[in-house]
Amino acid sequence: MEHDLSINIDRLLGRLAELAEIGAIEGTEGCARLALTDEDKAGRDLVVTWMTDLGLEVSVDGIGNVIATMPGEGPPVMTGSHIDTVRTGGRYDGNLGVLAGLEVIETIQAAGITPARRFAVGFFTDEEGSRFAPDMLGSLVYVGGMPLEEALDISGIDGAIVGEELERIGYAGSAPLPGPSPHSFVELHIEQGPVLEIEDVTIGAVDGVQGISWTEVEVVGQSNHAGTTPMGLRKDPGFVAAACANFARELALELGDPQVATVGRIDLHPNLVNVVAATATFTVDLRNTDEATLQESEQRFAEFLEKTASAEGCTVETRTLARFEPVIFDPAVVDIVESASSNLGYSVKRMPSGAGHDAQMFARVCPTAMVFTPSVNGISHNPAEYTSPEDLEAGANVLLHTMLALANLETT
Amino acid sequence: MEHDLSINIDRLLGRLAELAEIGAIEGTEGCARLALTDEDKAGRDLVVTWMTDLGLEVSVDGIGNVIATMPGEGPPVMTGSHIDTVRTGGRYDGNLGVLAGLEVIETIQAAGITPARRFAVGFFTDEEGSRFAPDMLGSLVYVGGMPLEEALDISGIDGAIVGEELERIGYAGSAPLPGPSPHSFVELHIEQGPVLEIEDVTIGAVDGVQGISWTEVEVVGQSNHAGTTPMGLRKDPGFVAAACANFARELALELGDPQVATVGRIDLHPNLVNVVAATATFTVDLRNTDEATLQESEQRFAEFLEKTASAEGCTVETRTLARFEPVIFDPAVVDIVESASSNLGYSVKRMPSGAGHDAQMFARVCPTAMVFTPSVNGISHNPAEYTSPEDLEAGANVLLHTMLALANLETT
Repeated sequence: MEHDLSINIDRLLGRLAELAEIGAIEGTEGCARLALTDEDKAGRDLVVTWMTDLGLEVSVDGIGNVIATMPGEGPPVMTGSHIDTVRTGGRYDGNLGVLAGLEVIETIQAAGITPARRFAVGFFTDEEGSRFAPDMLGSLVYVGGMPLEEALDISGIDGAIVGEELERIGYAGSAPLPGPSPHSFVELHIEQGPVLEIEDVTIGAVDGVQGISWTEVEVVGQSNHAGTTPMGLRKDPGFVAAACANFARELALELGDPQVATVGRIDLHPNLVNVVAATATFTVDLRNTDEATLQESEQRFAEFLEKTASAEGCTVETRTLARFEPVIFDPAVVDIVESASSNLGYSVKRMPSGAGHDAQMFARVCPTAMVFTPSVNGISHNPAEYTSPEDLEAGANVLLHTMLALANLETT
Repeated sequence: MEHDLSINIDRLLGRLAELAEIGAIEGTEGCARLALTDEDKAGRDLVVTWMTDLGLEVSVDGIGNVIATMPGEGPPVMTGSHIDTVRTGGRYDGNLGVLAGLEVIETIQAAGITPARRFAVGFFTDEEGSRFAPDMLGSLVYVGGMPLEEALDISGIDGAIVGEELERIGYAGSAPLPGPSPHSFVELHIEQGPVLEIEDVTIGAVDGVQGISWTEVEVVGQSNHAGTTPMGLRKDPGFVAAACANFARELALELGDPQVATVGRIDLHPNLVNVVAATATFTVDLRNTDEATLQESEQRFAEFLEKTASAEGCTVETRTLARFEPVIFDPAVVDIVESASSNLGYSVKRMPSGAGHDAQMFARVCPTAMVFTPSVNGISHNPAEYTSPEDLEAGANVLLHTMLALANLETT
């Protein structure tokens, strides 16, 4: 019975541990494999070895995406994620989705199952965007969202060029881009947030990705002596920044979940105890799964900023750092994730992703959804990132049975 | 008629310009002569030459204060200020008070006037505190507020030791400390704030110095992903900092002038657009001329901080960076400054000083007040610091006639 089929958690944990040794951050469980560095190359080589050992056909395209497909014909049911990490990364973010994909394939091979549609697993270049902006670069190029030539010219935080680094580490492949559309795509990932853990739910059936609006605000006022300048005569950009951070909080609470608003960066100049600041530069990160509400939050924030700065006698310049509309995953695929979870006896919750993922790029070209597993304390991008073996096993089993169900779908 | 006596503004401007050449900041009108550096030594040597040229008796004490006194007997009517500057200083802050004192003495010498009490002019070591903390160090030691031995052991931001630097530049003198109390003390200084300019008043008759309360606050929360962490699950120290900066503004407005409150420094960590901060470190600068109200502002701020941090699930540590009680100058001396201004036809306003000055140390040992002249745009500690020649002349004339009136006082 296919429903009894289960992945081998020890094998999955073993591969996670072996990959985490590459770029390991001493004294922690975490690792650092920034995209297209020597550490990334070593991680890629290891995963490609595992792909080859399973008898998969490995292709490498011009942006360095690596996709391993079971032999056969036709668009595969694809899974995958990324193996690059942030500078202080954990061992699960991205890696889980890739290695669980390998585990799914090894599991059906061992069980002698040949699904109606073949499976594929890929890892996509520079998902984190920590070295080269934008993030999700490889999957973006795969689905035709950016021309390859443009992507190859991108320079990173260390001055390195994507195209040169791909050549240097031997991952400038020749598979065509944009890549062929899979039959469907499903990605397993850690939640990177606290919701599943707090609600004591094992599986997130991810029905979309929040839209993201990042704005950098520079407020210019008048630097003054903090002792000799009466309150009524101030033009204090630090006050404007604080008032906006306060307003962002109020706005998010008023709009309600899933709206979030974060002022994570504030830089005052000259940033001294006894000087009214001359300038304040800060960022606001607004997210919602609903585009109309996201736009409302942007507009109301902009109005408050203008009004407050004007009343304070300050001038304002804003710059959009990032703007992505919300992504809605295919409801039929989300249903399959939910059913697979329930059938396996796991608690499950439909939820949006607050972070960006490669799956959102594939949603442009094929039916797509994601599977989330809990993150202890909601921590990620941190060596302390952790998901229990039981939850990893649950997530990989849901991935397995979701892919089997997708392979058996009558319609495409 | 003594009332017709006037200082020579061209001579004063000439000395201001000549002193400003030492440590000049290229391309600006400003200068950098941090305390006890080679530039400070060169400035000191120049001013001592001018003191000697006027036939004054020059004494140097163990902390490097230099006082030039007219020959004769008895406690002098003293004026003075400082010639050290901040790293990006202007040419008026401090220097004006010293060179106007020389100008007053040269003026009465030229007029053949021998006042009933002799005059003295001094410059006091490390008033700015930019290299060695605390500020107003020289005048503090002069009035017995800190033992000389303790002051000589102070190490600076560059690791230099006060005592070693004094020996090195040849200003470790032998005049006794604490120094002899003058008959009275009056200091001319630029306002360093915008009040006189905005109210179109020429002279400030300074009746006291605001009390100062500086606190550094460190708020520790929980760093989280800005996209995946719902608002209700956050422990955001950045929000606590913003709320406190907002509250400080409201509190100062509610308490009314002369209360001021400034959050001039905010440091979030990791300070990234898409990360709820782990920690926020910020400062609050509270000032008032009334000690009871200053204490009320401290207490209410502390209560708000505790309440807000607690509601956010954050912990707080505070550290007092500085705490000075308000200083009240001698009303009789303030009256003399006011009368001298009116007699000369200048508009005048009693006002507190928002910044600290050497005069506040002398207020501990003798009748003291200050004279303020306008600062264009309220700017100081900046090469763009500027006071018009007319206002400089007015200030020096008020200093002259205040000192003459003090010299003729029947009582001490």
